[in-house]
Amino acid sequence: MRNLGAQANLFVRSNRQRFLNELKEFVRIPSISSQPKHAREVKRCAGWLANHLRQIGLENVRVIDTPRHPIVYADWLHAAGPTVLVYGHYDVQPVEPLNEWRTPPFEPTIRDQNLYGRGACDDKGQLFAHLKAIEFYLRNSRRLPVNVKCLFEGEEEIGSPNLKPFVARERRALACDTVVMSDTRMLGPDRPAITYALRGSLSLELEVKGARGDLHSGNYGGALHNPLQALSEIISRLHDSHSRIAVPGLYDRVRCWSRREREYMARFGPSDKEILHHAQATRGWGERGYTLYERTTIRPALNVTGITGGHQGAGGKSIVPARAIAKIDIRLAPDQDPAEVEQLFRAQVCRLTPATVRSEVRTFFRTKPALVNRQHPAMRAALAAYRQGFGVAPVFVRSGGSIPVVNEFQELLGAPTILMGFALPDDRIHAPNEKFHLPNFFKGVATCVSFLREISVQPYCQTKIGALRSRDVVHRLCSAVGQ
Amino acid sequence: MRNLGAQANLFVRSNRQRFLNELKEFVRIPSISSQPKHAREVKRCAGWLANHLRQIGLENVRVIDTPRHPIVYADWLHAAGPTVLVYGHYDVQPVEPLNEWRTPPFEPTIRDQNLYGRGACDDKGQLFAHLKAIEFYLRNSRRLPVNVKCLFEGEEEIGSPNLKPFVARERRALACDTVVMSDTRMLGPDRPAITYALRGSLSLELEVKGARGDLHSGNYGGALHNPLQALSEIISRLHDSHSRIAVPGLYDRVRCWSRREREYMARFGPSDKEILHHAQATRGWGERGYTLYERTTIRPALNVTGITGGHQGAGGKSIVPARAIAKIDIRLAPDQDPAEVEQLFRAQVCRLTPATVRSEVRTFFRTKPALVNRQHPAMRAALAAYRQGFGVAPVFVRSGGSIPVVNEFQELLGAPTILMGFALPDDRIHAPNEKFHLPNFFKGVATCVSFLREISVQPYCQTKIGALRSRDVVHRLCSAVGQ
Repeated sequence: MRNLGAQANLFVRSNRQRFLNELKEFVRIPSISSQPKHAREVKRCAGWLANHLRQIGLENVRVIDTPRHPIVYADWLHAAGPTVLVYGHYDVQPVEPLNEWRTPPFEPTIRDQNLYGRGACDDKGQLFAHLKAIEFYLRNSRRLPVNVKCLFEGEEEIGSPNLKPFVARERRALACDTVVMSDTRMLGPDRPAITYALRGSLSLELEVKGARGDLHSGNYGGALHNPLQALSEIISRLHDSHSRIAVPGLYDRVRCWSRREREYMARFGPSDKEILHHAQATRGWGERGYTLYERTTIRPALNVTGITGGHQGAGGKSIVPARAIAKIDIRLAPDQDPAEVEQLFRAQVCRLTPATVRSEVRTFFRTKPALVNRQHPAMRAALAAYRQGFGVAPVFVRSGGSIPVVNEFQELLGAPTILMGFALPDDRIHAPNEKFHLPNFFKGVATCVSFLREISVQPYCQTKIGALRSRDVVHRLCSAVGQ
Repeated sequence: MRNLGAQANLFVRSNRQRFLNELKEFVRIPSISSQPKHAREVKRCAGWLANHLRQIGLENVRVIDTPRHPIVYADWLHAAGPTVLVYGHYDVQPVEPLNEWRTPPFEPTIRDQNLYGRGACDDKGQLFAHLKAIEFYLRNSRRLPVNVKCLFEGEEEIGSPNLKPFVARERRALACDTVVMSDTRMLGPDRPAITYALRGSLSLELEVKGARGDLHSGNYGGALHNPLQALSEIISRLHDSHSRIAVPGLYDRVRCWSRREREYMARFGPSDKEILHHAQATRGWGERGYTLYERTTIRPALNVTGITGGHQGAGGKSIVPARAIAKIDIRLAPDQDPAEVEQLFRAQVCRLTPATVRSEVRTFFRTKPALVNRQHPAMRAALAAYRQGFGVAPVFVRSGGSIPVVNEFQELLGAPTILMGFALPDDRIHAPNEKFHLPNFFKGVATCVSFLREISVQPYCQTKIGALRSRDVVHRLCSAVGQ
């Protein structure tokens, strides 16, 4: 094993510059999935990725169209051992506000051991660590220690609308013993962490409408209910005076965790001080009786992610605007059901909307919360892999974020998802100046190398569909989803 | 007099197409004063206007630079009678949202007896009626019945920051017996109205700041006070449950009007039904115990004219935004002082800002409310002029809008301002699809013709500086303001 680690390190050191050039090429493509004007770039990114998978020696590489953005698949299925499905996403978040970026989001730049760029960390850089680990094996020994299936989507940042039907349809072809993905955070540069719990999410839009058009605020101010004011009034009533979400029934299914679990969280999770430090914030806020870590993991949260209405930009404009829109993101604790919470939210907005305006709620997407069994053999493999890659044992942590597919892989493939993340709390994912800490990228490659070997030596049940071979998979995967 | 009316009508009929072509040229220039990118166009518009003043026969035409947008001046001072200062503004409001315009805002288009375009009504079209009246006299008799000074600014829509210092410095050169401007509304196509009261206004921006940058709403949602939520909470507390403005002390100076005055308003002003009809709104809102007309004229109003924060545009984005901005417009009733109200507002925002965020208030501009004496001889001239131009006697009305200079002309020049407006309630000023009702334009020209003659026959004190002649004025007006 020591030998494998030394080989992996040598491989990383001697290919460092090439890896960075390749990753920069990947980050340079503006694959923003939520903005229709970038759809071509998302497609181009899928093509780039497929090409790269071919280059490193994977087989059966396919770009599979969906009603929106393509899925990229590749595999290597010549091992006797278990099968690992490597999942990741090549789409990225929008980049606004552009003026807050020190260097342009799609001109990846290295400063102080960090690669800056949209997607550098979430998820292109982390996904890429797995590809370099696969390359290590195929280049050195032309074999992988386990069967590998790669499944990379271009819709993670919009709630993975087409992945679930694809996985459901292709459950035989995608059968595996475990899924691994790197799209979560460590606690610090030398503090690796395995995420075992994720919050769900519900992405909504709330529109409030008044008169048919904008009106002069001198002539009508004081005589009509201003939609921006009415929207503010509704939003202000979505939390009570204890900073709890004021949506009747919303807390009904939120699990009360044991003292032991909360003690484990307090011992191994980030402290309030660390969370505020990483947020560059001075004061916490939220539900009484819970630490900041608990508020962002085992408790739900309702966040206004954007408001648009009336005059935008410089100067003033004397209007009563005709409408106002808020974008709202609700994070759900384990056991909450997004569809149920959506209904509760809609009912509450109805109750809070005064007769002087009209309101409408639109749903963008829903993601279920997820919990992964900490005792699973693949978890043991990940523990050992981190120890080898980073020289230190990881801790188990919860994440406040949401990854739609974790639940779906469990439900459809019966496989746990190992969240083996390499991001740092200050990597500013989703925000301007997103970065990836390059030492984590290189140690990440070594960790992924170890993980594949560790999986091959864990006592495992074989992949449920055992001897399924490439040709069948290829045949099945050729057809597009949902068309 | 009947002869003058007939002559004026003939002049309008025979020049109809030329007038429209000229007005379209004027409207075509995008002189948006609040947006720095349009500064050149504002300047070009000033040049166009100056050129037109020269063409119609006015003298001493000057474009006077100010720290922002130029003032345009011209005069004709060869009459023995009193002096009328014609005021107007050639700048216009922003045009967003652009997609709601049926025809582009700066491509003036005639449909159904209306000229559509930004500024068609506010104030280019109304200002233009005065120019055509002046042209009528100078073309037909090479004389005006009174002395005329034209003063047109390019900053009315941003609160006239440079007009007051200019008028203060040039009070001798601008001395006059009365000011006339057309920038207010009639009650309907055949219901002329003279505005005798205006609300003041206070244009502000309220910014709420949280963490230093946008943060991932999964990782931080529930642990930090979202600035958009905090802003909504502050805004929701700026009105009480009776829809009164919840700023302590704000109503202290609001005058209680006599029953007689309120009865006059009820009799001659627009009804609730008319106001809602013109707003294309189904329900009123606001302070109990007052009609909609009263709420928009003798009562103050606080309006949110825009909110910007977090993700704008299509799709969702999972962030806790770093900041949120609301633009706020406070309309003041007679006797309220904008500077005092600004201090009360700032104090209330301080009180309402929780310790979890920071807030900042910025002031764009302040305008005092105004009241004009209904018994002034120039008012009698305006009553007679409307009767001749529109064939019906006007009523006195209050306006909810604000015109900064009305107070300033009273204070600095000791002259009342006659608000002889030709706009209709459905002209959508400040909104998409602004229009000017062309019959009002043509009748407006006839009204302005009559007004100048009527002023010359009213018993009047002579202009305070009597024999001041053009050469002195020119000499004084050559220097730029504030430089």
